[in-house]
Amino acid sequence: MNNFNFICPTRVIFGSDTIQNLSNLVPINLKILVIFGGGSVRKNGIYEQVKNALNKHNISEFWGIEPNPKLETCLKAVNLIKRESIDFLLSVGGGSVLDATKFIAAAAKFDGDPWDIVGKRVYFDKALPLGCVMSLPATGSEMNCVSVISNDSLKIKRSFRNELLYPKFSIIDPKTTFSLPLAQIQNGIVDTFVHILEQYATVDLNTSVQDGFCFSVLKTVIKNAKIAINDPQNYDARANLCWAATCALNGWCNVGCIVDWSSHAIGHELSAVYGLDHGLSLAIVTPRLLRYNLKFKKAKLAKMGREVFELNADELSAAKGCIDEIESFFKSTGIATTLAQIGLEKNSVANLISERFKQRNLIAGEHENIDYKAVKQILLEC
Amino acid sequence: MNNFNFICPTRVIFGSDTIQNLSNLVPINLKILVIFGGGSVRKNGIYEQVKNALNKHNISEFWGIEPNPKLETCLKAVNLIKRESIDFLLSVGGGSVLDATKFIAAAAKFDGDPWDIVGKRVYFDKALPLGCVMSLPATGSEMNCVSVISNDSLKIKRSFRNELLYPKFSIIDPKTTFSLPLAQIQNGIVDTFVHILEQYATVDLNTSVQDGFCFSVLKTVIKNAKIAINDPQNYDARANLCWAATCALNGWCNVGCIVDWSSHAIGHELSAVYGLDHGLSLAIVTPRLLRYNLKFKKAKLAKMGREVFELNADELSAAKGCIDEIESFFKSTGIATTLAQIGLEKNSVANLISERFKQRNLIAGEHENIDYKAVKQILLEC
Repeated sequence: MNNFNFICPTRVIFGSDTIQNLSNLVPINLKILVIFGGGSVRKNGIYEQVKNALNKHNISEFWGIEPNPKLETCLKAVNLIKRESIDFLLSVGGGSVLDATKFIAAAAKFDGDPWDIVGKRVYFDKALPLGCVMSLPATGSEMNCVSVISNDSLKIKRSFRNELLYPKFSIIDPKTTFSLPLAQIQNGIVDTFVHILEQYATVDLNTSVQDGFCFSVLKTVIKNAKIAINDPQNYDARANLCWAATCALNGWCNVGCIVDWSSHAIGHELSAVYGLDHGLSLAIVTPRLLRYNLKFKKAKLAKMGREVFELNADELSAAKGCIDEIESFFKSTGIATTLAQIGLEKNSVANLISERFKQRNLIAGEHENIDYKAVKQILLEC
Repeated sequence: MNNFNFICPTRVIFGSDTIQNLSNLVPINLKILVIFGGGSVRKNGIYEQVKNALNKHNISEFWGIEPNPKLETCLKAVNLIKRESIDFLLSVGGGSVLDATKFIAAAAKFDGDPWDIVGKRVYFDKALPLGCVMSLPATGSEMNCVSVISNDSLKIKRSFRNELLYPKFSIIDPKTTFSLPLAQIQNGIVDTFVHILEQYATVDLNTSVQDGFCFSVLKTVIKNAKIAINDPQNYDARANLCWAATCALNGWCNVGCIVDWSSHAIGHELSAVYGLDHGLSLAIVTPRLLRYNLKFKKAKLAKMGREVFELNADELSAAKGCIDEIESFFKSTGIATTLAQIGLEKNSVANLISERFKQRNLIAGEHENIDYKAVKQILLEC
């Protein structure tokens, strides 16, 4: 096990009808900006619950954070914050709204070009405090200090992190996910699954507790995915998926481990260029990336094959079988797993994304072997 | 899954040679009291590492926290704190030293009789900040806000909790456990195992992620116990046991679950009256308590039997087999599992402890069925 330094100070309020707790969680004496996405919260009742809970608070609203949230939209919120002397941010929506809120919290206190926070990962020691109502189990953003922002003019989608950006609290009410469109549930399931894979399927460092935590999240996702898709109002299934999504990226599963994130690196490029949903991009890339890196990942994939998919075989067969099972699981949710299925031609995609890796000298993977050449090979298999 | 409200803001610094981080973690501008146990840290090198790391800090020392830490000893530290205007406490030792430090942190700011913090669980909203160097994987105190204190004159051992008592940081260096006496390793292994059991083996609420986390901790303990006992300098085994102990009681395994704690309730009485080590008291009580409560616990014990011990049987047989496996595992560490083995006569123990439950009207268990009569029956089987 590697040495590690772990902290996660976010308070999680989880369960049915928990949004009402906002009235105590959001500071009453501060000026609050509530940040929303495109408007689905008006239809599913979340907006009304938030407004009721905060009826004694001093709030303004900012609407319009898009999926793969854009720098340009975030900067509009920053202007509003400065104009209205906002003290506290409340994100109401999914991972995109929360990621945007994290960036806005940093940018509002940042001297200089705000894009440097992402583009150059410039360190900062000030940020507005923020809280969250999470309506979509997927990104895990509700219990970490990471954010992913897209720069539309540069066509770059990139993550950054800072401990100041842990939400002070995150409210997760599984009932708010009942009305989510199928595609968002599929994306969330794949996103959660791949978060674990990119933290687990690397080098075996004898991290027994953490590996078992990973298996638990994966088994939970597999067990509850079909139930949640077929029976959207099944509270237990949604609750288990919500909590699995949070645990998949709150650090509990990867402390002391070596992580990868190369599926995310390639996926972010696909989203930046073609606007692919994040989960969809991972469903297409991940199985091929695992096959490409089989020689590095076979020990842990074999262990996972035995523990999660009950494969009974030698190491290499169990590892290969595990990847096949992962791909089958993605397909079983109904999500697309090839570029052709979503109308993209693999040769042109492979050339374009590979060229972007080359130009920006991007290298990914726990063995730093995912360069522009590897990316091309991987995408040609997608 | 039940609704839950979870927070754990402690920073964990884990790994080899991490005590040196104290120099940055302990505030330089405050007056520090370092709290120690009986002196083993002088022999195993921890004291020297702490002193070196804090050579620029303004520190005083308090020595003499005993196992099952006593109110009377803690109050001496409180007096010292008031005399010397201490601002920050650093616990250096095992769970007893840390539990004492938590109580001292609260008592130093408490108006009124400090025992009320424990005896009446009086709420308090002030406490000194504290940090921790954890030298013994067992109680999990390093990442929770619970403390257990003994009142020698009343012969009462009791827990209390307050979010103010989360350590600001906890340093865990598995190497500091290499020199621990066998009995302390045995106690720690059983303590960790029973912490999970008391959170897991209750009512099945379809808490899939949490149940898997429990299995992971249990499997880790089973796998690494023998290695750690036979090869005390095996870093990986000690690291896995340390992290398992922390994860067993930091809340990650029990959010949204129903918990029990009746083995602890009976064990605390055995420690208060007969001075038994905490782990030892649990090794004796837990298997019999599980058998006594089999009808309530059989569903989850059967699931655990299948997942952890690979039992392949109907529910009742798998549940009974699971309890037998738990008892066998305890025995395999070399710890005593009956009162006779430690020279106590079960009839007199059963009568005395049962009488104490009766007098204080103590009731334990997730179904509140562990009263003085149940306690007598359970102890007669011990």
